[in-house]
Amino acid sequence: MAEIRIGEYLFRRLKQMGIETAFGVPGDYELALLNYVEPAGLNWIGTPNELVGAYAADGYARLKGAAALVTTFGPGELSALCGLGGSFCEMVPVLHIVGYPSFAAQASGQILHHTLGDKSYDHYVRMSSELSCATAVLKDPSNATAEIDRVLNAMMYHSQPGYIGITEDVVKTLVPASSLDATMIHMALSSGTEDDRALAAIMAALEVSKNPIVIVDGGAGRSSWASHAIELVKALKSLHFNTVMGKGIVGEDDPLFAGCYAGVGSLPATSKAVEQSDCILWLGHMPSDFNTGMFTEDVGQKQFQARMNTVLPRLSESIKSSSVLSQRAPPTPVEYFPKVPLEVPSSIISQAWLWPRLSSFIKPGDMIVAETGTSQIGALATKTPQGVYYWTQAVWGSIGYAIGAAVGAAIAGKELGQYRRMIVFTGEGSLQLTVQAMSILNRHGVIPYVFILNNNGYTVERYFEGWDAAYNDVPDWDYSGLFRSFAPNLSTNTVKARSAAELDKLLSEESFQNATIPQCIDMTLDKYDAPAGLRAIFDFKKKMAGA
Amino acid sequence: MAEIRIGEYLFRRLKQMGIETAFGVPGDYELALLNYVEPAGLNWIGTPNELVGAYAADGYARLKGAAALVTTFGPGELSALCGLGGSFCEMVPVLHIVGYPSFAAQASGQILHHTLGDKSYDHYVRMSSELSCATAVLKDPSNATAEIDRVLNAMMYHSQPGYIGITEDVVKTLVPASSLDATMIHMALSSGTEDDRALAAIMAALEVSKNPIVIVDGGAGRSSWASHAIELVKALKSLHFNTVMGKGIVGEDDPLFAGCYAGVGSLPATSKAVEQSDCILWLGHMPSDFNTGMFTEDVGQKQFQARMNTVLPRLSESIKSSSVLSQRAPPTPVEYFPKVPLEVPSSIISQAWLWPRLSSFIKPGDMIVAETGTSQIGALATKTPQGVYYWTQAVWGSIGYAIGAAVGAAIAGKELGQYRRMIVFTGEGSLQLTVQAMSILNRHGVIPYVFILNNNGYTVERYFEGWDAAYNDVPDWDYSGLFRSFAPNLSTNTVKARSAAELDKLLSEESFQNATIPQCIDMTLDKYDAPAGLRAIFDFKKKMAGA
Repeated sequence: MAEIRIGEYLFRRLKQMGIETAFGVPGDYELALLNYVEPAGLNWIGTPNELVGAYAADGYARLKGAAALVTTFGPGELSALCGLGGSFCEMVPVLHIVGYPSFAAQASGQILHHTLGDKSYDHYVRMSSELSCATAVLKDPSNATAEIDRVLNAMMYHSQPGYIGITEDVVKTLVPASSLDATMIHMALSSGTEDDRALAAIMAALEVSKNPIVIVDGGAGRSSWASHAIELVKALKSLHFNTVMGKGIVGEDDPLFAGCYAGVGSLPATSKAVEQSDCILWLGHMPSDFNTGMFTEDVGQKQFQARMNTVLPRLSESIKSSSVLSQRAPPTPVEYFPKVPLEVPSSIISQAWLWPRLSSFIKPGDMIVAETGTSQIGALATKTPQGVYYWTQAVWGSIGYAIGAAVGAAIAGKELGQYRRMIVFTGEGSLQLTVQAMSILNRHGVIPYVFILNNNGYTVERYFEGWDAAYNDVPDWDYSGLFRSFAPNLSTNTVKARSAAELDKLLSEESFQNATIPQCIDMTLDKYDAPAGLRAIFDFKKKMAGA
Repeated sequence: MAEIRIGEYLFRRLKQMGIETAFGVPGDYELALLNYVEPAGLNWIGTPNELVGAYAADGYARLKGAAALVTTFGPGELSALCGLGGSFCEMVPVLHIVGYPSFAAQASGQILHHTLGDKSYDHYVRMSSELSCATAVLKDPSNATAEIDRVLNAMMYHSQPGYIGITEDVVKTLVPASSLDATMIHMALSSGTEDDRALAAIMAALEVSKNPIVIVDGGAGRSSWASHAIELVKALKSLHFNTVMGKGIVGEDDPLFAGCYAGVGSLPATSKAVEQSDCILWLGHMPSDFNTGMFTEDVGQKQFQARMNTVLPRLSESIKSSSVLSQRAPPTPVEYFPKVPLEVPSSIISQAWLWPRLSSFIKPGDMIVAETGTSQIGALATKTPQGVYYWTQAVWGSIGYAIGAAVGAAIAGKELGQYRRMIVFTGEGSLQLTVQAMSILNRHGVIPYVFILNNNGYTVERYFEGWDAAYNDVPDWDYSGLFRSFAPNLSTNTVKARSAAELDKLLSEESFQNATIPQCIDMTLDKYDAPAGLRAIFDFKKKMAGA
């Protein structure tokens, strides 16, 4: 009987799922495991630290549907937890594989490094269980493959992280190679009455509605249903919108697209159109504070809980064959977008000018990650056409995420072969958390553009509290120098844009638009300048607090 | 009745304990809290990320006895956990203060950012409880000061991290100012029969012993008993040794010091002297793998569990007044130290030459942190005289620790006024995890020297597994460029030492020894070169595995 090692089984399972790259940082308890990565046909991408690895895995999974992160017991795995928390709450399936000390060593009664010194080996899996839909520490080789499959199934079903701990001895244990032939059945509810009821209710509501709209949000593992949403919007021919989390699914170049709905943070015409509709079909509704302009959405409650992947295609078909809907007059497009000021300000870059100006720079085939904070809100005013993959962390909101996620996305983009540029919008305060990610961003064949909003500190925090407090300042760094120093043997281009005119000129250059080497754009902005949407949200909060 | 806010109470309590600086990263839920740091008389040191903040707090606490780290709920606190795990297992009291969303917001039933999206607020405190000796999330203002004191007491008693979560609303609640007058009683066992028995047993053993020795180890919160160990060694006048964790307590310039005992990783004369003794007084015994040369110590078991802080001073007194011990002939010093080769190798820097060569560079008044890995083992061959504060993480072994811990130590050193130079030994692979710490290392009045062992990857890991595996390589960075770019507005000096001759010349220069600006020394080493102690440990492991 042909046999394979459990370590090999694991990585070949991942390969079967379409995972072609594993991320992580080596550590001694995990080295035995790493020897099976490349023989299983996966690439290994070492990241400068585990948090960057976790963000990279998240970025990769958002494009490719799943990802793997490998770390070592104790310090290694704990360093990744913030990233996995983000994957958990934003429904991104990342498998966290942790190399454990052998059972022989555990049983020795000695104090091993990377432990808490108390000879207990289950502290860390308990911690990770708070952020995982399933965990397993493989103990018994006879059920190890079943346990691996159980965690993988749960991860894909819930679209959330799973955790598998493997000791140095179990990694090398032999199991039948035929285990790999078993179908990895992803648990699924049977398509039944629940779906039928939802479908009937939605169709009934749509058919009596005078002006139905669609809001494409980002909840419920959006990567799995994104393509169905595009089809639905095309079939319904109504006005459609997105949200902070839903941006980047349906192209904003569609004439019926009418803006990003973020409560009081929305553009006026967008708010008006949403709030006037008598029937809102809200896909993947994720009512978190950052996603709704701090809960300022105002749209009545008509939610349907349905299984997106089966209901949406059926709904598109029903819409196409509905005589009522096909006879309805098409809605009038909404002029929601701010007129891009033709005149370039003579001053430094303002948030009001920057984001609309970036619209013409964005092309189909781009990937964009916008950092939590001013970038996340500002980028709502940048148009992203169909074929752009865009996302931001609207629930977890971990600063430092964007540059790490961009690493994984760039690699996924290359594997998918359909992306050419990786565009990151981040603030300098956020970048400081994970700046070393820049060192691996530019080595994998997709061209990164790192736009740094350099505004002397944590501007969003200033709006919350401490307008001029020293704790909201960050130290000055030379970002161009860093970008070069992280990749001294590669050609890179760094630009300091001190004025709107300088940036405008750069964005207009064809050689910049079609760059062949990594680009870092260090943009000087005013310390107190924030996107209009952000100001509106804070003004509203202040009014509420004072009322 | 005079009243103060709970936030102010907390930081004034810390100030009473001798904590003069709080470390951390701002986040919106925590900003209300940060407004009380400086009014309470503490300095705020923002760190580029939370892991660096946790390491900095650990380094600060090792010198000053306790430290405080402030982070925000969710992503912020989770990013710090690896650092707190290290403080937990190496017995360093760090208070982790976490800013929580207000109870009003929690009760709203809305999905707040930084949560897991499930409207539950106790995931993170459960996770931290695995790494804390006490936790509290302050809910009831009427017992908040008592809860704060309870956690602080436990933290000092166990010499381990404590966790206090404070919501935005509780921070601002008023409590009587007189609460601050209550004595912060640190729980302590009564000095009783347990101590007496230990003392009597130790004295009896010492008096019948022909050649007693002392091994000063690093367990049990060494900062609290370090001064008593120095006194004891002086009183006993026997040969004494240290360990990987105990190095940096008693000066190695004492004629009776006979080396660092690390099992088969020890120098031959050191092993011989330890193993020939008929009575070993082992202070703060910490039998972890990295601390004992992978459990290769061979010294019989004669342990005493006693309360170090009360027993050690009494023991010193008893020794001084013992007529038996005072009549004993002093032991012959042991020539354990490798002869420093006078000749500088004509090649690149070798580990065999490097570490003994550094001895003459080290002076009283220095602080040294050696990273886990080749630095940790290599530095055993560097002599550290009395008045040098030295440490390394021998249990937790988290790479990236050294440069972060150095930040906190530099600030503590400045506050203590007795340290002049902060010397860091780290590998380039380790440095990559937390490289941004360099940006705040050089701004606080103590002069840092960052010695980077640049050897193309994770050399220690190569000895474990994957001698030539790509996963043990790290990308090339320009460390000099990074050092400058992290502090573009400060004068710094960066040196690339490509040969032993270049390094030797540098170390001999008075201007380098007495530098007034930060120094970064990027040393080229061979990829496979390791300190002799490390080779010995791996040879022993291989022999055991083969036997």
